[in-house]
Amino acid sequence: MLTLVLADSELELVPPQIQRHPAIRSHARKQGKSPARLLLDSSFHHPAMRRLEQGERRGRPDIVHLFMLLCLDSILNGEGKLRTIVHTRNNEIITIAPETRIPKNYTRFVGLMEDLFEKRRVPGTGTPLLTLESGKDLKAVLEDIGGKSIALDPAGKMMDLADFLAKKKGDITMVIGGFPHGEFNSPVKEFCSESISIFPSPLKVWTVAAEVLVNYGNVIHKVEKSTHR
Amino acid sequence: MLTLVLADSELELVPPQIQRHPAIRSHARKQGKSPARLLLDSSFHHPAMRRLEQGERRGRPDIVHLFMLLCLDSILNGEGKLRTIVHTRNNEIITIAPETRIPKNYTRFVGLMEDLFEKRRVPGTGTPLLTLESGKDLKAVLEDIGGKSIALDPAGKMMDLADFLAKKKGDITMVIGGFPHGEFNSPVKEFCSESISIFPSPLKVWTVAAEVLVNYGNVIHKVEKSTHR
Repeated sequence: MLTLVLADSELELVPPQIQRHPAIRSHARKQGKSPARLLLDSSFHHPAMRRLEQGERRGRPDIVHLFMLLCLDSILNGEGKLRTIVHTRNNEIITIAPETRIPKNYTRFVGLMEDLFEKRRVPGTGTPLLTLESGKDLKAVLEDIGGKSIALDPAGKMMDLADFLAKKKGDITMVIGGFPHGEFNSPVKEFCSESISIFPSPLKVWTVAAEVLVNYGNVIHKVEKSTHR
Repeated sequence: MLTLVLADSELELVPPQIQRHPAIRSHARKQGKSPARLLLDSSFHHPAMRRLEQGERRGRPDIVHLFMLLCLDSILNGEGKLRTIVHTRNNEIITIAPETRIPKNYTRFVGLMEDLFEKRRVPGTGTPLLTLESGKDLKAVLEDIGGKSIALDPAGKMMDLADFLAKKKGDITMVIGGFPHGEFNSPVKEFCSESISIFPSPLKVWTVAAEVLVNYGNVIHKVEKSTHR
């Protein structure tokens, strides 16, 4: 089983200090929502975000969207060997059931996340597909999962990912940074047993997710084949 | 070098026979564009699309968007070993320079494609990053590329993709269907030397693209390592 954790991801509601900014208010009006219930989105709220600390990297639901699509539609997930977790900059944890069908359309995805931030679980009744838990930092998430966890970090030790995973045995947790550039806000080095880098220059989140999903799948399939012989 | 061709992709302008449908006209008004210049999009034009042949699978720029992001941000592309080509249901061919930065935001991506359908090249001056050529079918595209081409097709021979690629030598072309479900409209079996299936149930386009990009990269990196020894 692979657990993929998107850490320090830039997913949050519009913070109080910019809720009255004209760019936010006009977008909220168009959406027919109160500014406090709107997901922060750099492609719409850029003018307002200059006032925010780390404003140049925040408001990236698109990264979370692509990450979730790649994970949930992966072969690994289809085989029941993947757990997908999203941790946000504000220590909110989103757990996603493997059978969840994430909207392909970005606008609908944003609506789904706004719903989740409001209700804390989606759907509201029955077994939830998505749940949101507040006040849980990355350390607590990794402790809950247990076992070895490996951070993918451009500052880590350079490794060939296929070779690295081939040497690992059993369940592992891989931690990918869910932000467009810069470093982890969480002290991943303290929580993870290893930090590895898989390419000499920074990669996009979806590129890293694809590399991990496919390579971990290859290792599992090889093990299965040799066991069946 | 890997050439990835997205074939029969569901990318087109709104066809003349539905340009006067209320759903199209209202969307065009909101966008401030004429209906004829609008990209067909099932998430907005669904009510109008029932009148179209194969209407249940058409209008999927989101698939092309994800495909382009995964290709252009891949390690393989960063190393200069990938060529990315999109073929559409109407035999239009989009060629994308490896250094192109595709907008992450879906709305901006749609704007870029609409621009491309209008001007046939983007940017309008200087060396183009994207070009669009009409009246060229998949057969002609594959002949231009030359060499072996392999179709990824749920109806093909079941193969382990990593093993399959490890046995291939030199440049290859892989053809992925750019539609949400159903079969290739183009007779891929006539043009491709092989058809392979990599999983017993249908996969999303982005899942297949990720599998091909990562596994082809692994093969290339292994060859390079053994050469450097």
